[in-house]
Amino acid sequence: MRKFILLFQCQDQKGIVARISDFIFKHGGNIVTADQYSTDPEGGYFFMRVEFILNKEQQNKDSLSEEFSPIAREFSGQWKIIDKSQTLRMGIFVSEDGHCLLDLLYLYMSGELDVKIPFVLSNSEKPRKLLTQHNIPFHYIPANKENRREAELLSYALDSTDFLVLARYMLVLSPEFLLKYNKDIINIHHGFLPAFKGADPYGKAIKQGVKIIGATAHFVNDQLDEGPIISQEVEYVSHKDNRQALIRKGRNLEKKALADAILSYVDYRIIKHENKTIVF
Amino acid sequence: MRKFILLFQCQDQKGIVARISDFIFKHGGNIVTADQYSTDPEGGYFFMRVEFILNKEQQNKDSLSEEFSPIAREFSGQWKIIDKSQTLRMGIFVSEDGHCLLDLLYLYMSGELDVKIPFVLSNSEKPRKLLTQHNIPFHYIPANKENRREAELLSYALDSTDFLVLARYMLVLSPEFLLKYNKDIINIHHGFLPAFKGADPYGKAIKQGVKIIGATAHFVNDQLDEGPIISQEVEYVSHKDNRQALIRKGRNLEKKALADAILSYVDYRIIKHENKTIVF
Amino acid sequence: MRKFILLFQCQDQKGIVARISDFIFKHGGNIVTADQYSTDPEGGYFFMRVEFILNKEQQNKDSLSEEFSPIAREFSGQWKIIDKSQTLRMGIFVSEDGHCLLDLLYLYMSGELDVKIPFVLSNSEKPRKLLTQHNIPFHYIPANKENRREAELLSYALDSTDFLVLARYMLVLSPEFLLKYNKDIINIHHGFLPAFKGADPYGKAIKQGVKIIGATAHFVNDQLDEGPIISQEVEYVSHKDNRQALIRKGRNLEKKALADAILSYVDYRIIKHENKTIVF
Amino acid sequence: MRKFILLFQCQDQKGIVARISDFIFKHGGNIVTADQYSTDPEGGYFFMRVEFILNKEQQNKDSLSEEFSPIAREFSGQWKIIDKSQTLRMGIFVSEDGHCLLDLLYLYMSGELDVKIPFVLSNSEKPRKLLTQHNIPFHYIPANKENRREAELLSYALDSTDFLVLARYMLVLSPEFLLKYNKDIINIHHGFLPAFKGADPYGKAIKQGVKIIGATAHFVNDQLDEGPIISQEVEYVSHKDNRQALIRKGRNLEKKALADAILSYVDYRIIKHENKTIVF
Repeated sequence: MRKFILLFQCQDQKGIVARISDFIFKHGGNIVTADQYSTDPEGGYFFMRVEFILNKEQQNKDSLSEEFSPIAREFSGQWKIIDKSQTLRMGIFVSEDGHCLLDLLYLYMSGELDVKIPFVLSNSEKPRKLLTQHNIPFHYIPANKENRREAELLSYALDSTDFLVLARYMLVLSPEFLLKYNKDIINIHHGFLPAFKGADPYGKAIKQGVKIIGATAHFVNDQLDEGPIISQEVEYVSHKDNRQALIRKGRNLEKKALADAILSYVDYRIIKHENKTIVF
Repeated sequence: MRKFILLFQCQDQKGIVARISDFIFKHGGNIVTADQYSTDPEGGYFFMRVEFILNKEQQNKDSLSEEFSPIAREFSGQWKIIDKSQTLRMGIFVSEDGHCLLDLLYLYMSGELDVKIPFVLSNSEKPRKLLTQHNIPFHYIPANKENRREAELLSYALDSTDFLVLARYMLVLSPEFLLKYNKDIINIHHGFLPAFKGADPYGKAIKQGVKIIGATAHFVNDQLDEGPIISQEVEYVSHKDNRQALIRKGRNLEKKALADAILSYVDYRIIKHENKTIVF
Repeated sequence: MRKFILLFQCQDQKGIVARISDFIFKHGGNIVTADQYSTDPEGGYFFMRVEFILNKEQQNKDSLSEEFSPIAREFSGQWKIIDKSQTLRMGIFVSEDGHCLLDLLYLYMSGELDVKIPFVLSNSEKPRKLLTQHNIPFHYIPANKENRREAELLSYALDSTDFLVLARYMLVLSPEFLLKYNKDIINIHHGFLPAFKGADPYGKAIKQGVKIIGATAHFVNDQLDEGPIISQEVEYVSHKDNRQALIRKGRNLEKKALADAILSYVDYRIIKHENKTIVF
Repeated sequence: MRKFILLFQCQDQKGIVARISDFIFKHGGNIVTADQYSTDPEGGYFFMRVEFILNKEQQNKDSLSEEFSPIAREFSGQWKIIDKSQTLRMGIFVSEDGHCLLDLLYLYMSGELDVKIPFVLSNSEKPRKLLTQHNIPFHYIPANKENRREAELLSYALDSTDFLVLARYMLVLSPEFLLKYNKDIINIHHGFLPAFKGADPYGKAIKQGVKIIGATAHFVNDQLDEGPIISQEVEYVSHKDNRQALIRKGRNLEKKALADAILSYVDYRIIKHENKTIVF
């Protein structure tokens, strides 16, 4: 019994769901969940995610893909079939603050975050001790604003990971790095984007006197803190909350927004579209 | 161009989505949204809601129903096809506090709540003035705990409404009334069910010293405040909040929970199952 | 038995609370609530709000003020004594969307919002009907972006009000108007400031793909949407929420943020400081 | 420069704040924060918490207490002066699930949770590895429902701790244990009290079909899950959330509610009153 996910998108038109669900039925599949969304039923763009179970041993991702290919062509669709038994490899970059890392490790340890973690990489020695109970390599690379040492970062990340998580990594990755890595990178920003982009969002929040603070998990693109937003969390603050209080409150927001984003990601529930996300 | 909704439920099995979406496709329909849920992909119970557009004038609910009937039988399913152009008739019962009524009237006036309102009925004269700008009949029936005057209530509601909303109606409807009315009734309870059932939930919340209060919209059944929950809202409170503060905070929760529940209901997005609700 | 509020601020120093509470005690007063805040116990700025009851008939705001004056001088403080029996006069400006107006009227009618409302003024005829059950004058002034008719606005507002509320008034008031009016103006912005300033915040929120929307009540100053923030509210949204859904969700946020701000304001619980607010 | 906290409560009456603040002023103290609350300005009960700084070296808790004693007698008040430099000793009991423990350890490590932790005690071996990076003794006591081994628990806790935290300790402590320990115990319950007391609150939440789940930090008394509530947290759930999803969402709520409660507790901001709490 094997579980697959089919992601599909195309110009909205009649009969898509019928064709796709018929395809799954004819292969003896049982749909576990199906989600779909159209930006507009008249002339919009259509997105679908179907999770289904097959119990014929002989079927695999490749044979399914081959057989689905003509259907996709019919609708001029973009698509992907994923074999859920293949676990994604998630590299983690982190700086000094280990709260997000710790939260992800807990989910990993409990089996809820079903990934492989080839390494945790930091420009600080501090997070090393958070890994003592885990069998995960820790790489210390003393990168800083003057020398980001991106070649080294890339040498660790490029082949060993399917995606990267910046779990409070405080250096901006260059457009060159993004281009060379060329896979998804999820960042947690400790502010409510699009407000308070860039450095020191808590300082900006205090200066502005906002009554609610936030955190934002988003895909990284070549514009700082402007990639597609995946999830956001917020909490009330008051004039009494100083920077330390904001940091403490913010940590809970960051942990939750990042964990939610990653859990959605590894379950292939996120689709990027026009610098936004559809999160099924 | 006409919009229809198909609601379907049956024992989970292979091919349901394929058959249903094929049925819609073959009738020239375009699926606007489709939601489905299975309590368990292995041996669970399956629920589906599909909203689709047909542009053939000759098709109507009855012809569609006749043609869908054999498919439903195949899966031993329960089902209903709804013609979205037929507007539901929503009767409103209210006592003294008019905030939920006012909120519903605003949604009604703005066109977002697409219902007919045959009447507002109250055991107080106070809400009458909230209706002056609307063309909705107001009936004052001086019901109270000693004399609930349910025959009169029923005479207004039975034939003229498709469902009832208790928008802070402070008298319990008897099992006899429910049996005779025999259609859906949605109530707003000013407490976080299942905590604080029955009278004076704010008094109970104060006595208990809770730090969060809530409101709950639910279907009425013959157990007081025990019908299937549709939506809930909550807000933080502190030791400083007295009864008046709780009432004020609670009003916002009640308005939101009730409006959300009704908007879902009139869009046929709520399915009752085992004294719970699936809200698509 | 009369209720007074003392607002006090000065450079933080020893003995302030002792002197102030001693002053109240010596006048036979009983402190109902006292709040204080210092930006920093070492060299910061100190704020205090004390609400107290006096039962000597002969005492009034003026005699109290005269006697308190030397104490304030001692600490080089800014201060104000308010007689709670004097009700503030709140003018309301509104455009087409009446949800905030309706919410304020409900609070007013229920006695919870203790103000006088000398008028509701609108650049649309639509809100007129919301006032039919109230005895509040409605002024229609067909102002628009080309002709803001601020002289007329001012002629209504200047002498008859103690503060103004922009309950979704969609024209920006000019710096000249603000200068001439020279009293507090509270605005509700249908976005989570400082994100999405200016026009069409919901359009901007959709374009940005945020997962949470907000509303912000703030004092108006001569920078658009940059005055001190008083209260904010937020709610989750998803890719499925179109503009209409955002507007509907936003209305609840706007109503709540604005009502909270005004209730704090008329209770003298807001202190402006460095383009921020302390809300006791 | 030393920091003290004065907690005071008595029948509400005139002049309390004046006397107390005068006392602090006369001792050369600077008030950092002062909070007060009266259940009713007429005939209610009054509570006060003042945090102040003294810079005279010779003053200590005992001399201050001796001098304050006559003032307290005057008002027939209950009171306590706390020297903030004396760190509380917090014992932790935990069962298998280590998420709350890990969260507390992070706060402890970062210096924000200013306590001593004499031990972590568990009826499972699982949490041991969470302590490897800390210098905190771990005691494994294989207690279970049949044999709670409370004598052993008590032997660890009685003299070495000032209060206990049940960070998801799944055995109920007997009234005898509570009587013998006779200090504060803070528990985290993974449900929204007073709903879902006792075992398996998530199972109950699913069965009930609630749309919001919660967690509650409260003081332990001899009634199961009925001690004074300190803090609560909530999150939306839907029909799609199975038990595993509820557990995952619940963990964030539990961590936050418990951490908030403990941070308030060690800062002496919680006052118990009539089986409720005032949290300044």
